[in-house]
Amino acid sequence: MEATGNISWGVTATALVLLMTPGVAFFYGGLVKAKSVISMMMMSFGAIGLVAVLWILYGSSMASVSSPTQFAGDPFADFGLASLASGKGSNVALLTVGYGATFAIITVALISGAIADRAKFGPWLIFVGVFATVGYFPIAAWVWGGGWIMHLGGMLFGEKSGIEFIDYAGGTAVHINAGAAAFALALVLGKRIGFQKGIQKPHNVPLTLLGAALLWFGWFGFNAGAQWTTKGMDGVGLITINTFGAAAAGILGWILIERIRGGKATSIGAASGAVAGLVAITPACANLTPGWALLLGAITGAVCALAVELKFHLGFDDSLDVVGLHLVGGFIGTIYLGFFATGQGLFTGGDLRLLVVQVLASGGVLVYSFVVALIIGLVIDKTIGFRVTSEDEIAGVDLVVHGEEGYALTS
Amino acid sequence: MEATGNISWGVTATALVLLMTPGVAFFYGGLVKAKSVISMMMMSFGAIGLVAVLWILYGSSMASVSSPTQFAGDPFADFGLASLASGKGSNVALLTVGYGATFAIITVALISGAIADRAKFGPWLIFVGVFATVGYFPIAAWVWGGGWIMHLGGMLFGEKSGIEFIDYAGGTAVHINAGAAAFALALVLGKRIGFQKGIQKPHNVPLTLLGAALLWFGWFGFNAGAQWTTKGMDGVGLITINTFGAAAAGILGWILIERIRGGKATSIGAASGAVAGLVAITPACANLTPGWALLLGAITGAVCALAVELKFHLGFDDSLDVVGLHLVGGFIGTIYLGFFATGQGLFTGGDLRLLVVQVLASGGVLVYSFVVALIIGLVIDKTIGFRVTSEDEIAGVDLVVHGEEGYALTS
Amino acid sequence: MEATGNISWGVTATALVLLMTPGVAFFYGGLVKAKSVISMMMMSFGAIGLVAVLWILYGSSMASVSSPTQFAGDPFADFGLASLASGKGSNVALLTVGYGATFAIITVALISGAIADRAKFGPWLIFVGVFATVGYFPIAAWVWGGGWIMHLGGMLFGEKSGIEFIDYAGGTAVHINAGAAAFALALVLGKRIGFQKGIQKPHNVPLTLLGAALLWFGWFGFNAGAQWTTKGMDGVGLITINTFGAAAAGILGWILIERIRGGKATSIGAASGAVAGLVAITPACANLTPGWALLLGAITGAVCALAVELKFHLGFDDSLDVVGLHLVGGFIGTIYLGFFATGQGLFTGGDLRLLVVQVLASGGVLVYSFVVALIIGLVIDKTIGFRVTSEDEIAGVDLVVHGEEGYALTS
Repeated sequence: MEATGNISWGVTATALVLLMTPGVAFFYGGLVKAKSVISMMMMSFGAIGLVAVLWILYGSSMASVSSPTQFAGDPFADFGLASLASGKGSNVALLTVGYGATFAIITVALISGAIADRAKFGPWLIFVGVFATVGYFPIAAWVWGGGWIMHLGGMLFGEKSGIEFIDYAGGTAVHINAGAAAFALALVLGKRIGFQKGIQKPHNVPLTLLGAALLWFGWFGFNAGAQWTTKGMDGVGLITINTFGAAAAGILGWILIERIRGGKATSIGAASGAVAGLVAITPACANLTPGWALLLGAITGAVCALAVELKFHLGFDDSLDVVGLHLVGGFIGTIYLGFFATGQGLFTGGDLRLLVVQVLASGGVLVYSFVVALIIGLVIDKTIGFRVTSEDEIAGVDLVVHGEEGYALTS
Repeated sequence: MEATGNISWGVTATALVLLMTPGVAFFYGGLVKAKSVISMMMMSFGAIGLVAVLWILYGSSMASVSSPTQFAGDPFADFGLASLASGKGSNVALLTVGYGATFAIITVALISGAIADRAKFGPWLIFVGVFATVGYFPIAAWVWGGGWIMHLGGMLFGEKSGIEFIDYAGGTAVHINAGAAAFALALVLGKRIGFQKGIQKPHNVPLTLLGAALLWFGWFGFNAGAQWTTKGMDGVGLITINTFGAAAAGILGWILIERIRGGKATSIGAASGAVAGLVAITPACANLTPGWALLLGAITGAVCALAVELKFHLGFDDSLDVVGLHLVGGFIGTIYLGFFATGQGLFTGGDLRLLVVQVLASGGVLVYSFVVALIIGLVIDKTIGFRVTSEDEIAGVDLVVHGEEGYALTS
Repeated sequence: MEATGNISWGVTATALVLLMTPGVAFFYGGLVKAKSVISMMMMSFGAIGLVAVLWILYGSSMASVSSPTQFAGDPFADFGLASLASGKGSNVALLTVGYGATFAIITVALISGAIADRAKFGPWLIFVGVFATVGYFPIAAWVWGGGWIMHLGGMLFGEKSGIEFIDYAGGTAVHINAGAAAFALALVLGKRIGFQKGIQKPHNVPLTLLGAALLWFGWFGFNAGAQWTTKGMDGVGLITINTFGAAAAGILGWILIERIRGGKATSIGAASGAVAGLVAITPACANLTPGWALLLGAITGAVCALAVELKFHLGFDDSLDVVGLHLVGGFIGTIYLGFFATGQGLFTGGDLRLLVVQVLASGGVLVYSFVVALIIGLVIDKTIGFRVTSEDEIAGVDLVVHGEEGYALTS
């Protein structure tokens, strides 16, 4: 019999993580111009609609493999979940599928931050469907579904070594993945008109802070959620405190950098710092003591506060800093485990091998995701076009693409 | 002893469903003019205050009957829950009452969408109190509390037939009920000044999308919540995945229709599509396989995208489409079960009888709710007046009725 | 073995209560001028970051004492939770720490409402850190961690009397505490330029109502959350229904007073009434029957509707009514128990002694918190300065202190 507490937490965690994608929509939506807010939010809401349907139809089947040499699972293994739902399944199995959908959704939705103010919606939806299918679903299989990354430690150092790649809740599968794909799409779509340092002035800061709050709120489900499945509920306490602490320390790290550099502590910085801390703790939440989690959060907040300026130096328009937050933050968290994972890291266990695995696995996902997103993006752009015209961009994507305006406050 | 997981999910689900009514307030609030947003939100918040108090005082007593021939339970059976709370009750029983309050609240709050921009608040509160008492509380008894609708299948085809009306979480008791009452109030209050196709331009789209996000988030509690009471937690997995999938498919169904008709995919359409899918899956969430749930969501999203234009042809001003979303969506979901309920429907079990029960029961609720709301509305309108004057309507109900303005962004 | 349901509810409740502080940020943020919204929200978000880190480092150690004569626990007893997390702890113990952090955070964040529109951020953060350390952490030990207030009944009437101070979820430790400190800071910073009755016009009412909704939503975790720890889940049902009912009755009580006094029912009144009811039920949620809970909510809503005008008569600028809502509401709830606590109150048990304990304990916290906050505030103000200059106040704190503006809606 399945424990009622597992089921209770399973459905709660699913709802929490689903809410994170509207959180992304509001976080991103507040950061762009008022005339792009609908476009920005619709990229997330469209991803919710399409990825959830694909996941139920065939994605969850693809996210599980029977051998590490398999690229992805058979999409038709349980098409539409008919078999799982027809008495042969269980609550926990079905909840696991629902929970998994929320991860697929948010990974793809996060990418949209790189192409703010200038993307068409139809091509975006096509990208969503194709990238989910060939980008996220296989990577989920590699990292959590029995694939090559799960076995990487064994392949390199022998199964008896006990060395296993650690990405507890998606630092690699979600955040490096989304960040790498975002980098690719930023290159495909090119810079916004007038792109230069400091151009971006958020049109609605409360909306962005709301998004950050919903993200943090939902992240408890994101990190502590996986525990309800096969593993029982043990570990939820540590994961919760680590998730909490890293996010808080991320705020402090980010605004400290702002002050050190002679500026003011900004609310966008605080919100971004919390997200940075959360991204970094995602892979590491179950394998650090709370003190190390605080340090990780603070470091990531500080580093990301610097990293988001890279785009100005390198000249790519990752509009809302998906690379600077998710790729950088996910990478820091994944690598940090190689040093500080309880009992296993270079500094905490005197063993270099976990670090090697962490680097190779996250590098592998980074390269794969970047290449796949680049190809999909280029094909879309060269055929039906991914970007609106310059006139439409200046007029505002909301009206042109969706026929709507975000606000009519004076009527 | 009560399972801790049941209690955990019980309080969580109660909180989730309570949050849905603020969700309604924001969904509706964003859709109206800036000068009506407070009135719109206050109709929901007022309903929360009043209906919760009435439910605790006597509503939950009325929502349970001992015989199918009873109209409603004795309101004084446990006035103020004194008996239930004084050691003779249990956690689950008290949680069930708290959970039930959230359903009563949202049913009444949903109605307010039909009378946007023109209703007085005092008369609305009177309507809320009376309609909850003679509209919702009895219907809840009929559908879930041992009343005639629960026994309809047995009455028609014999108790041994096993045919029982299915409304798992409120397609009939909540959505058809609210939609029918909304239709009545739209007739009572009449059209807004200047009502015509396309007049409505949302004043704050992010607010509406926030409302939609909170509704979806809370809907997991709405649909999967009932499971914690007497039934244990079995079924939560299936309900969760079906709720998820139908909403997602509803988005796709709605924006597909928008595109097919030559328009653009709108964010209001996406939000409405999700709600449509959720409404339709509400009665059906425990009795469909995930594939059929996806189809139901897609169909309802598409049909509701067309149904919301009915009001322009028929000439009633259901301002925010309570009829087009909740009456139509609730009806589709309830009837769909007659065809596709696992093992019981016309197509899935070769038996017409469930369909007959589904049609009769939802028709009964529709007619009763419409008539009751019409009578209450007319009495209020003919005595103290339900609608503001034309001058006040043009000036804006917020300032006139509540002495407040939604925004002061330039001070 | 720990029950899975306890763990499920533990992490859920932690997430719920954490979300309350963004709720405070939005509730407060909507009430101030558009040019102060960022400052207002940042005081809450800054508190989240700093207090969470301090709590994990040493606060939770301080919040538990081994003898009632101890002022506070040893901050280095388990610095950074290294001991608790290293296999010697448990899920429930770690969750209790995470849960406790959320209470520390919101107590401090609530105070910020008293100093809207005119506080510097750096000095605020210093206040946050110091007040958390010498204000909240010790008081938490006194009320819940084995301190003198827990033993006050025994000290006064003998341990055998069974008389024990009741503050189930923080009427004293959180709300009287925050309200008294807010009063002190309002005095330290002084009145805003142009302070007079009715000056305050909310810049964004939907934002405030969103905050109220998140507060109510999270309050289920706040009140029913403590149950998951050592006490099992018994009592969650009663707490849930009481929390629900008191908030709803608070809405009705407040808007009734507005109407009786010849005004209109306002949305800010409804939101404030709900919060007032929630504050009052916080200490009392487990020790009243639902009928008495409704009455408490209604009374508190009505009294607070009057109490918020005190500041105009007494001439202190508690800008967003932390005193009128949290100090007054917390006091009413705590004292109400002396009269109506099930089986123990003056009217419900014929015994005056609980009332004596309730008055003395809440008075003690009130005085201590006020004095501590006053000292900290004065020291900050006399050294680095707590308030912006008059020119900056007129220009708006957002731009001056944070270099940001809340909105850019016309770009």
